[in-house]
Amino acid sequence: MTKGRVEAFSDGVFAVAITLLVLDLRVPSPGGRSVAHQLAGQWPEYVAYGVSFLVIGIIWVNHHVLIGKLARVDRPVLFLNLLLLFFVVLIPFPTAVVAQHLRGTSWDAKVSVAFYNLVMEAMALAFSAIYAWAGRHHDLLDPAVDPARHVSALRQFGLGTVAYLPLVAVAFVSPVVAFAGDFVLAGFYVFDRTAASEGAVE
Amino acid sequence: MTKGRVEAFSDGVFAVAITLLVLDLRVPSPGGRSVAHQLAGQWPEYVAYGVSFLVIGIIWVNHHVLIGKLARVDRPVLFLNLLLLFFVVLIPFPTAVVAQHLRGTSWDAKVSVAFYNLVMEAMALAFSAIYAWAGRHHDLLDPAVDPARHVSALRQFGLGTVAYLPLVAVAFVSPVVAFAGDFVLAGFYVFDRTAASEGAVE
Amino acid sequence: MTKGRVEAFSDGVFAVAITLLVLDLRVPSPGGRSVAHQLAGQWPEYVAYGVSFLVIGIIWVNHHVLIGKLARVDRPVLFLNLLLLFFVVLIPFPTAVVAQHLRGTSWDAKVSVAFYNLVMEAMALAFSAIYAWAGRHHDLLDPAVDPARHVSALRQFGLGTVAYLPLVAVAFVSPVVAFAGDFVLAGFYVFDRTAASEGAVE
Amino acid sequence: MTKGRVEAFSDGVFAVAITLLVLDLRVPSPGGRSVAHQLAGQWPEYVAYGVSFLVIGIIWVNHHVLIGKLARVDRPVLFLNLLLLFFVVLIPFPTAVVAQHLRGTSWDAKVSVAFYNLVMEAMALAFSAIYAWAGRHHDLLDPAVDPARHVSALRQFGLGTVAYLPLVAVAFVSPVVAFAGDFVLAGFYVFDRTAASEGAVE
Repeated sequence: MTKGRVEAFSDGVFAVAITLLVLDLRVPSPGGRSVAHQLAGQWPEYVAYGVSFLVIGIIWVNHHVLIGKLARVDRPVLFLNLLLLFFVVLIPFPTAVVAQHLRGTSWDAKVSVAFYNLVMEAMALAFSAIYAWAGRHHDLLDPAVDPARHVSALRQFGLGTVAYLPLVAVAFVSPVVAFAGDFVLAGFYVFDRTAASEGAVE
Repeated sequence: MTKGRVEAFSDGVFAVAITLLVLDLRVPSPGGRSVAHQLAGQWPEYVAYGVSFLVIGIIWVNHHVLIGKLARVDRPVLFLNLLLLFFVVLIPFPTAVVAQHLRGTSWDAKVSVAFYNLVMEAMALAFSAIYAWAGRHHDLLDPAVDPARHVSALRQFGLGTVAYLPLVAVAFVSPVVAFAGDFVLAGFYVFDRTAASEGAVE
Repeated sequence: MTKGRVEAFSDGVFAVAITLLVLDLRVPSPGGRSVAHQLAGQWPEYVAYGVSFLVIGIIWVNHHVLIGKLARVDRPVLFLNLLLLFFVVLIPFPTAVVAQHLRGTSWDAKVSVAFYNLVMEAMALAFSAIYAWAGRHHDLLDPAVDPARHVSALRQFGLGTVAYLPLVAVAFVSPVVAFAGDFVLAGFYVFDRTAASEGAVE
Repeated sequence: MTKGRVEAFSDGVFAVAITLLVLDLRVPSPGGRSVAHQLAGQWPEYVAYGVSFLVIGIIWVNHHVLIGKLARVDRPVLFLNLLLLFFVVLIPFPTAVVAQHLRGTSWDAKVSVAFYNLVMEAMALAFSAIYAWAGRHHDLLDPAVDPARHVSALRQFGLGTVAYLPLVAVAFVSPVVAFAGDFVLAGFYVFDRTAASEGAVE
C-alpha cells in the first residue's frame, strides 16, 4: 500500500510536469505576421517540447520498472525519490530556456543547452542513486529479482546516466548538435532491449 | 499492476490537459469595455473550450475502452500510448490558436482551424496504432475479447480516425464550418452505439 | 474497475482545478507600493480563492458520496459526469473574474458575481442530473442503497441546487452580499447532517 | 475505499501544487543581459523553489504516515483534510512572493518571509488538527496503532508545528536567516528518526 502511494504521487508529478510543457508553446498574436508564419517560426519550441516530452516519458517508464523491482520502500528511497521528482518538476524550465534561445549559435544558445543537460545529468544521478541504494539493500528487492542481475543492469544503466555530461561540453561547440544528442539518447532508449529494460512491462 | 500504472499515468495526463483548457479563457481587464461586453465578446474562446473539452473527454472514454480490452501491456503499446499522450497534451495549444483567430474568415482563421484538425488527425492516428497493434497481437487481448470483433471494431473506428482530414480541407473554405464539424464529430460519438463503443462502460 | 477509473479521472480533474485557483493570486510587483500594502489590498482575491476552494472541495465530497452509491457506471452517467467536470474545470475562470471586479458596487462587480453564480448553477444542475439518472435506474445503485431513500435525498439535495439562482438576482443588488451567500451556502453544507450527506464518509 | 479516495485526491493536490512551483522560475528574456547572467541572477527563485519543494514533499510524507494510522475517515477528518490542502495549494503563492522580494534586507523582504511563515504555520496547525482529532477518537485509529503512543507522537510533532512562529519574528530581523531556518527545519525532518516518523514507510 505504501509503495502504491509512492507510485500514485510520482505518477501525478510526472503527469503534471509532462503536461506543463505545452505552456511553453506561444499562441500567435493577432497583430504582426500571419499565424502560419508565426506557427512555422517557433520550430525550437516544438523541438524542445518533443525532446522533453520523450525524456519525461522515458523516465516515467524507467521509474515504473525500478519501483516494480522493489518489494517495499524505505525512508532513504522515499527521499531519493523526492530528489528525482525535484529535477523532473524542473524540466519544463530548462526546456523553455532552450526553446527561447536555441536559434543561432550565439553564447546564449550554448549556455541554454548546457544548462538543459546539467539538469538532465542531475536527474539521471538521482535516478541512479535509487537504483544503487536498492542494489545494496537486497531486502528491499522483490524476491523474484536476482540481485546480481540488478547490479549488472545498474552498470549498463549507469553508462546512460553519464551520457549527459559530454553533451554539456558539446553544447559549447554546437548547441543544435548537443540538443540533437538529447533526442538521439532518448530515442535510443525507446528501441533499446538490454537487460536494464528487459521485462519492463511484461 | 503494470496495466494499472499505465492507466493511472494516462488518467493523470488527461485530467491535467483537460483542466489546462481553462487557462485559455481571458479574465476581462478592469479598464476599457464592461465586463459583460468582454465576457460576451470571447465566444470563440468558449466554443474552443467546449469542443476541446468534449474531444479530450471522448478520447479518455475511448482510451478506457481500449485498455479494458487488453490483458497486458507490452513495450510497443507503452510507447504508442506515450505518442497518443504527446498529442493529447498538445491539444490546449491548437485550442488557444483557434480561440484567438476564429473570428472572421481571414487567412489566419483558416490556418488556425486547419492546424487544429492536423493535430487531431495525428492524435487519432496514434490512437488507431494502439488499436491495430493489439489487433495483431492477440496475446495482448483479454481472453474475453473476440479478436475478430476487435478487428471489425477497428475498421469502424478507423473510419472515424480519417474524419479529421477532410476538415483540414474544409477549414480553407470556411473555418467556422470546419470547427462546427469538430463539434458534430465529437457529439456524434456521444450518442454512438456501434460495436466499437458497445459495452464501453458496462 | 470501470467505476474506479471514473473516480480516478474525476479526482484528478478536481485536484488540478482546485490547485489552479492559486494562479489567480497576484505576486506583488517590486516597484510601486510596499509588499504588505499590495498583499493586504487583494482581499477580493483571497475571498474568491477561499469560496471557490470550499465549493470545489464540497463538490468533490458530494461526488464521492454519489459514486459510492453506484454499483456500476453506464454510458449516460459517464457523459453526465463529463458535463459536471466541464463546469468544475471552468470554476477558476469565474473565480478570477470575481476576484478582479468585486471591489465596489459597480455594474462590473454585479455582472461578475452573477456570472459566477450562473456557472455554479450549471454545475449544480449537472450534478443533480447524475443523481436523478441513478434514481431512475435502480440497477445502477449499489444493492445496499435504498432507492426510495436515494430519491428523498435527491429532493433535499435538489433544494440546494436551485439556491444559486436567487444569488444571481441578489448579485444585481449587492455583489458582496451575493458572494457572501456563496460562502454561507458552502459553509452550511460542511456542518449539514441531513439524509443527503448522511453516511458520506463512514 | 473511502480512505483510498481521500488519499488519491490529496496525492493529486500535492502533486499539482509541487509541480506548479516551477512556474515561478522566469525564463531569461532574449534582449538585455546574457542568459548565463540572468540564470545566475535569480538565486532567490531557486532557493525558494528548493525550500518549498522540500516542505511540500515532507508534508506529503507526513500525510502518508498520518492517513496510514487511520482505519477509516469521518466527516471532520475529511474537512480538516480539505483545510490542510487549502494551505498546501496556497504554498506556490508565498513562495513566489519570497522569490520576488528576498534580495536585500528591505521591509519588503521582511514582510515576504514573515508572510511565508504565517502560511506555513497555518498549514502546520491544520495538520496537527487532524492528528489531534484522530487522537481523541480512537475508533478512527487502525487497531494496530497504540493510542497512547499516537498522543505522545502528537506532542513531539506539536513542537514542530509551532516552530514557524518564531521564524515570523526572525523574518523582521533578517529575512535570509529566517528563510534559511525554513530550510533547516525541513532538512531536520528528513534525517529525523523520532517516534512521530518511526515506521513511516516500513
